[in-house]
Amino acid sequence: MEKFLKRIEEIAADRKHGARELYRWAVENLLDWVKKRGQSHPQELIPLLAETAKAQPSMAPLLNLVNRVLLAWEEGPQKTQDLLEESLKGEETSTATLVEEGMKVLKGKRIVTLSRSSTLLEVIKALLNRGEKVEILISEGRPLMGGVATARLFRDMGIEVTLCTDGLIFSLVQEGDVVALGADAITPQSLVNRCGTYPLALVARDRGVPFYTFTDTGKLLPQELVPLFKIEDHDPTEVLKDPHFNIVNYYFDETPLDCITGAVTERGVLTPEDLQRLMGEIKVSPRVKEIEKYLESP
Amino acid sequence: MEKFLKRIEEIAADRKHGARELYRWAVENLLDWVKKRGQSHPQELIPLLAETAKAQPSMAPLLNLVNRVLLAWEEGPQKTQDLLEESLKGEETSTATLVEEGMKVLKGKRIVTLSRSSTLLEVIKALLNRGEKVEILISEGRPLMGGVATARLFRDMGIEVTLCTDGLIFSLVQEGDVVALGADAITPQSLVNRCGTYPLALVARDRGVPFYTFTDTGKLLPQELVPLFKIEDHDPTEVLKDPHFNIVNYYFDETPLDCITGAVTERGVLTPEDLQRLMGEIKVSPRVKEIEKYLESP
Repeated sequence: MEKFLKRIEEIAADRKHGARELYRWAVENLLDWVKKRGQSHPQELIPLLAETAKAQPSMAPLLNLVNRVLLAWEEGPQKTQDLLEESLKGEETSTATLVEEGMKVLKGKRIVTLSRSSTLLEVIKALLNRGEKVEILISEGRPLMGGVATARLFRDMGIEVTLCTDGLIFSLVQEGDVVALGADAITPQSLVNRCGTYPLALVARDRGVPFYTFTDTGKLLPQELVPLFKIEDHDPTEVLKDPHFNIVNYYFDETPLDCITGAVTERGVLTPEDLQRLMGEIKVSPRVKEIEKYLESP
Repeated sequence: MEKFLKRIEEIAADRKHGARELYRWAVENLLDWVKKRGQSHPQELIPLLAETAKAQPSMAPLLNLVNRVLLAWEEGPQKTQDLLEESLKGEETSTATLVEEGMKVLKGKRIVTLSRSSTLLEVIKALLNRGEKVEILISEGRPLMGGVATARLFRDMGIEVTLCTDGLIFSLVQEGDVVALGADAITPQSLVNRCGTYPLALVARDRGVPFYTFTDTGKLLPQELVPLFKIEDHDPTEVLKDPHFNIVNYYFDETPLDCITGAVTERGVLTPEDLQRLMGEIKVSPRVKEIEKYLESP
């Protein structure tokens, strides 16, 4: 067991790799465990899954996976192994519907965005491939300037990009036709995404500009999984190298779900009500409570 | 005349001095002109005032001064000279009411703010002098980090300061009790202030947190002066040193006046309606139209 927990610790401490890699490693670790310890008492699974959830508590797909592993485990190790293997392949599942629907939403539009969404990027690439013109208005994305990196990427793809500070993007909403960005998680209450999303949604509503999040439904978190989800406070020196300052450095904020026009997903464009209904339909293992208790214990 | 226009050019080009100094120099320049050219044809005044307005088109008190000089000129050079001399002294006018009213609004509150307002600063100093505890939540203020400078100033005054990025300040509104900031200008439509103010006002309204601008009424711009007012696009390399990027770098945004709770002024706390009424009562010289035409001509 020690070995598996140590690998989770490594995943938690990693600052070099992206979400996709970390997710994959966490799944591989669970898969190794299930293969080797398939006959163990189910109770042994709880600490492993709890540590997995805790390692990347802002990674909604991983929290969903934890739930699905708990459910599969009720049907035995083989079922769990199948699920994990499927989940490794899952990354390549077709997002054809998402791309088609997303293109309809974005075609010919000036797009206001923040940070980076790989899902949005796929739709934009598809538009370019069809010879459509794309225009982007984006902010720089302090503290780590993720927006500048995305802006450069777009520019290198031949897209017309306008860049501004994070305080000014709101004033450019009226020059755009649509606000489009990603999602880190969607809960029954809110869209969790790069900070700045919440005020951007309010401005979009105030200006009558539609506001879409681009995401697969693996980021939908049913209510019972929300307690496992955490927005982390990051290294304050990313903001300012001054040890005598009280600095808050959350990367995400929370946008009330009724502020968004819709979510472009692999199941089509969904309204806030659609999203809430879908979240309500997700089966949640009663053992999630045990994971919660494990995480709460000192 | 050349000499006076040249001095205005210097004021326009100055990047080293603050608004207060630039204002003073512009007034002194007009005063010198009036003293030396008191007997000239009034028509000569138009280019001088137009160039003065153009030199600092985001400086509302200067635009108001231009209007008052036009009005005074109708009553002769002596009246104009009196006005300008008074205006130089005006900076020291008592702001006792503003400070008293402001203290009532801020006392015991966690204050969310942006950038720097010398008016707000006076109220906060008065609170500290009375032994009140002050807490500030402020964002860094890209591109020039004016918020960080203000945060350091507050900290050195012994105030408890929390600092965050410009995209995160909105998420801290719910931890504050009041949003308080300055004004660069107030028009019948909107509060013009550091960019980020508009979404901050929307978030404050969404969260039920009161939102006050701290300003003297010299920043109220009646409708007829609004055409002289300009929000300038600043040097893009302040945002990013990349010549191949389309960068927008306005310092200010516009908040619809009905989004604000009130303005703390030397005439007390004023509602949006009070402000609009006051702007409507300001007498405007018909010659403002001539200045507008002068500025529009190529």
